[in-house]
Amino acid sequence: MQTINPYEVKGEIDYKKVVSDFGLKQISDQTLERFEKLANGSYYAMRRGIYFAERDLNWLMDQYEKGNKFYVYTGIAPSGGMHIGQTMQFQIAKWLQDRFDAEVLIMIPDEEKFLVKKNPAFTLENGHTLAMEDALDIAALGFDSRKTKIFLDTEYAKTLYKQAVRVSKYVTYSIIKDALGFGNDTNIGALFYTSFQAVPAFLKSVQAGKNIPCLIPMGVDQDVHFRIARNAIAKMGYYKPASLVSTFMPGLSMNPKMSASDPNNTIYLSDDEATVAKKVNKAITGQQDTLELQKKYGGNPDKCAVCQYYKYMFEPDDRKLAEILEGERKGTLLAGEHKKDLAMRINHFLKEHRTMKRKIEGKLEDFMLRD
Amino acid sequence: MQTINPYEVKGEIDYKKVVSDFGLKQISDQTLERFEKLANGSYYAMRRGIYFAERDLNWLMDQYEKGNKFYVYTGIAPSGGMHIGQTMQFQIAKWLQDRFDAEVLIMIPDEEKFLVKKNPAFTLENGHTLAMEDALDIAALGFDSRKTKIFLDTEYAKTLYKQAVRVSKYVTYSIIKDALGFGNDTNIGALFYTSFQAVPAFLKSVQAGKNIPCLIPMGVDQDVHFRIARNAIAKMGYYKPASLVSTFMPGLSMNPKMSASDPNNTIYLSDDEATVAKKVNKAITGQQDTLELQKKYGGNPDKCAVCQYYKYMFEPDDRKLAEILEGERKGTLLAGEHKKDLAMRINHFLKEHRTMKRKIEGKLEDFMLRD
Repeated sequence: MQTINPYEVKGEIDYKKVVSDFGLKQISDQTLERFEKLANGSYYAMRRGIYFAERDLNWLMDQYEKGNKFYVYTGIAPSGGMHIGQTMQFQIAKWLQDRFDAEVLIMIPDEEKFLVKKNPAFTLENGHTLAMEDALDIAALGFDSRKTKIFLDTEYAKTLYKQAVRVSKYVTYSIIKDALGFGNDTNIGALFYTSFQAVPAFLKSVQAGKNIPCLIPMGVDQDVHFRIARNAIAKMGYYKPASLVSTFMPGLSMNPKMSASDPNNTIYLSDDEATVAKKVNKAITGQQDTLELQKKYGGNPDKCAVCQYYKYMFEPDDRKLAEILEGERKGTLLAGEHKKDLAMRINHFLKEHRTMKRKIEGKLEDFMLRD
Repeated sequence: MQTINPYEVKGEIDYKKVVSDFGLKQISDQTLERFEKLANGSYYAMRRGIYFAERDLNWLMDQYEKGNKFYVYTGIAPSGGMHIGQTMQFQIAKWLQDRFDAEVLIMIPDEEKFLVKKNPAFTLENGHTLAMEDALDIAALGFDSRKTKIFLDTEYAKTLYKQAVRVSKYVTYSIIKDALGFGNDTNIGALFYTSFQAVPAFLKSVQAGKNIPCLIPMGVDQDVHFRIARNAIAKMGYYKPASLVSTFMPGLSMNPKMSASDPNNTIYLSDDEATVAKKVNKAITGQQDTLELQKKYGGNPDKCAVCQYYKYMFEPDDRKLAEILEGERKGTLLAGEHKKDLAMRINHFLKEHRTMKRKIEGKLEDFMLRD
C-alpha cells in the first residue's frame, strides 16, 4: 500500500502505479525530445526520468509554438530550514526561466504547516520567519528578480483570498476528504487551504484579463492539490495548469522522501562542511556488507543514497554518472571514496549558495510581492 | 421542529426553547436595569424584549465599570438591497456608540452569499457591488465616521485571513457540520467562512496588543457562528465577545423572518412611497375576517404585522405602542387606518434615510477600512 499526498508519504513507492492511479502521463521519449528542442537545451533531471510524469505538457508546447508563452509556478511550505531535496523544483524553475524566458511565481504558504500539523512548534509567527528564510534561500538559487516574484500567503492574502474563494466554490468536502486524507477532526483552515495553493496557477490570467498558460514543476505528493485545482480552474474558464512531476529525492538512509523533520537523513542548506561530511559518511550505500563480498558481487546503485544524490543533483554529466553507477554495480567503487567525493560536491554547492545569499540579502525585497 | 442557523430559518420559532437549546441567557430585569443605568438611557428594543437574550452581558458591564470600554461589532451579508429588518442591528449599534462612546466595527462579507448560495446570481462581483451599496445604507443610519469602520472581506482580507487562519485551527469539520447544517457536498469556502466572521470579535485586541471587550448585537440566526467563535477565541487567549441577541422582525405576511429574497413581504430601503403603501396595504393583520367579527372579538397583535412593525421599529413611545396594541386587541383600531399610518411612518423613515444617503455619499470613504 502506498500513500502519497501532501501530508503523508508512506510505503514503498511504485511510480508506475502512481502514474495510473493519479491519471498522470509518463513523459515519453517523443515528448521529451520535443521539449528539449523547444528549450534549446536538455535538463539533466528530465533526461534521467527524475521528472517522470506530466500533465498537458504537449498542449503547453502547442501554445508556446503559437506564441503563447507560459509562466512557471512552484512553491514550498516552510518547515524549518530548506533541505537540498527542496531545491529541486526551484532549480528546474530557474532552468525553465532561462530557457523559455519564463516568469516564475513562487508561493510560500506560511500558514500551511500551522494548519495541518499538530506539532505546536508550527506557529504562524514561526511560519512567517521560516518563510522569509526560505525566500532568501530560493532567491539565492540564481533567479532573475525582474522575472521572479515570491510571496507569503499571509502577506498576499488580499489578492489570494478573493481568488481562493472562487476556487473553493467548486471543491466540496467529499472531494477534499478523500483526496487529502482529511476527516471529521480536520480543521476548516486545512480544508480550505488547497484553494489558496490553486490560485497562482491562474492568477496571471486574472491579472492579464486573458488566459496565460502555466507550468508547475512539483514533487508527486503535490499532484493531488492540482488535480483538484485543475477541475476548479477549468470551470472558472481558465487554462488548466500543465505540470512536470518529479519523484522524491531520497533521504540519506534511503527513506523514500528526504524530510525536513528527519535531520540525520537530510542535508540542510544551512549545514556546515563538517556536518555534511558526517551525515554523508553515515549514508546508506548499495554495497555489500564486507569488502570481500563487495568485490565479488558488486553493489546496487538503486539502493545507494550516494549514487542517488549524484543522479538527483550532484553529477550533471551523464557519462560520469554512468561511470559512477557502473562502479557501484561492479564493486570497483569503494564506499569511503564515494562518500568523500559526494560530501565535497555537496559542500561546494552549499558554499556557492552561501555566497549567493550574502550577495542577494539586501536585494530580497526586489523579489517579494505584497498586498 | 425549528431550524435556526445563518443559512436556514424554518418552522415556528419558540424563543424560550432557543434560549435553552443555544445556551443563551434570557435578559433579566436586573440585567436590563443595570445596562440602562450604565447607558444612562433605555433602548426601546431592549425594553420590549426584541433583544431577548445575551451572552456575558454582566461580565461586559463589570469590565466597563472597571474602565475597560468595549467596542461593538456587527455586520450584514449583502444579498441585494437592505431591507428595514436588516437595519435593526445597526440601529442598536449606533445607540450603543452614542451611549457608551463605543467604536463600531462593521463587516460586510461580500463573499458569503457567493459561497453558501446555489443561485448563480450571487457572483463575487455582484457581492462587491451590493456590499458597497450596503455600506452607504449603513453609514447613512447616522454613525460617527471617526468611531465607525466598515470593511468588505475581499478588501480587508490581508488583515482578516491571517487571523481567520488562527481561528480555523480550533474549528473542526465535525463542529461546523452539525452547527451550520453542512455536509459532504458543502464547498470548502463555505466551511472556512465562519473563521472570517469570527475575526472582528477579537481583532481590536490583536491590534491593541491587549484584551479589549467586544459586544455583538445580532439576530439569533447568527448566534451559532459566534458560539463556535467564542470557543476558538478563548483558546487563543482573547476575551470571548459578549452578545445581545434579537428575535426576527417578521415579514409583512407574518412569516417569521423578513427576508430579502421575498420582495412582496419585505420593505427595502430603496422602496418608494407608493411601493411602501402598496406592500403595507397587503400586510397581514391580527384582525377578524369581517368588520362585524372584528368589532365583536377584537384582534391579536401578536399575529399582526402592522402591530409588530410599530413594536420593532416605528413607534418608539411605549405608551403609544400600548394604545395601538390595545386598539388591535379590542377591535377599535381599523385595519385601513392602521396600515395607512404605518406606511406613513415607514415612508418618513425612508425619506430621512434617503436624505442622509445623499448627504453622506461623498464621505463614505471616511468609513471604509481597506488593506
